[in-house]
Amino acid sequence: MQQTISEWLDDLASGEPTPGGGAAAALMAATGAALVGMVTELTIGNPRYADHETVMTAARERAAHLRRLATELADADEAAFGAVIEAYRLPKATEAEKAGRSAAIQQALGGAARVPLRLAAVAAEVVELAESILDGANVNVLSDVAVAADAARAALSSAAVNVEVNTTALTDRSMAAALDGELAGYLSAVGRADRITAAVRARIGGAAS
Amino acid sequence: MQQTISEWLDDLASGEPTPGGGAAAALMAATGAALVGMVTELTIGNPRYADHETVMTAARERAAHLRRLATELADADEAAFGAVIEAYRLPKATEAEKAGRSAAIQQALGGAARVPLRLAAVAAEVVELAESILDGANVNVLSDVAVAADAARAALSSAAVNVEVNTTALTDRSMAAALDGELAGYLSAVGRADRITAAVRARIGGAAS
Repeated sequence: MQQTISEWLDDLASGEPTPGGGAAAALMAATGAALVGMVTELTIGNPRYADHETVMTAARERAAHLRRLATELADADEAAFGAVIEAYRLPKATEAEKAGRSAAIQQALGGAARVPLRLAAVAAEVVELAESILDGANVNVLSDVAVAADAARAALSSAAVNVEVNTTALTDRSMAAALDGELAGYLSAVGRADRITAAVRARIGGAAS
Repeated sequence: MQQTISEWLDDLASGEPTPGGGAAAALMAATGAALVGMVTELTIGNPRYADHETVMTAARERAAHLRRLATELADADEAAFGAVIEAYRLPKATEAEKAGRSAAIQQALGGAARVPLRLAAVAAEVVELAESILDGANVNVLSDVAVAADAARAALSSAAVNVEVNTTALTDRSMAAALDGELAGYLSAVGRADRITAAVRARIGGAAS
């Protein structure tokens, strides 16, 4: 997060394993949360939207919190990914080493699934926040509500793939099922995000909506 | 692009009009292009994927170009947005001033629609690139192809709203129809992106896919 955007994009495009899709998903969730924040900033205090002040103030605070969580998860993703790589590099010459390596891999995969699962929860909540400010948003920044929903949707969909790529490799199928089950609960926000974008486009009155 | 990610997110979340949804959409397109680049980097040279070398090399080059275009459009968006604000601030005391202001606003709105329209074209092409590398991508980074598609989809959907918010305010309806018509051509890539993500999740074998 202390890199310039330009450097980060260069690193993302490079053949280094991190940053990768996990960090990209986290940044998209943070972007969605930041845009929710912007819309609330440009609505709060405007007498035309006084009726929505309570909702906007709550959304502003929650969006700032979710943005922090998302940026923390970008770092956590890198650490969890590193742990998986480390586990695969453990020695496997003896039966005991093989068993130890296997257990370490499984543990690391569980950890690597939980980080994008937490990101999916954050992204789903950003979608809910975008929904909560849709009616009362300053019309001058209504389009930014749609962009916030699009960004959070992308973060959620990306996080889902990043969860599943780890849970499918788990030998503990009941743990995998529990993680996948939690993920499924968040995924309903994908359709909600699409409805937000459609609602914004309809209100704007675009020809393609 | 020379800001740190942390600073950029702070600015995005602030009540300043820029950066806003236009810059966020551009960054998501650049993120998608960068991830396509990463997948090609981690596939090219691996003998297991030798059959796909030509496609991967072409995609790598094109992705780097699209990433540059996307980052340029982030700056162009800010300039075009500034021109709209300036036009609205022109004097309107006399009939002549009113007419001049009106014409300036219309011209600025046309410019402000064309920037996200170009971004929509870039994002749609990033989706196509992600599709082109789907079959031959190193399986270790297959999930990143889905994240690239998700990011490009979000950029495209966001760019569409940003086009329409300007074209609906155009009094020249034939120009508006031309811009909206071009946009509609790019929007088919939204469904293509969804199919990429679904294909990746199916290949990974996630429970929720």
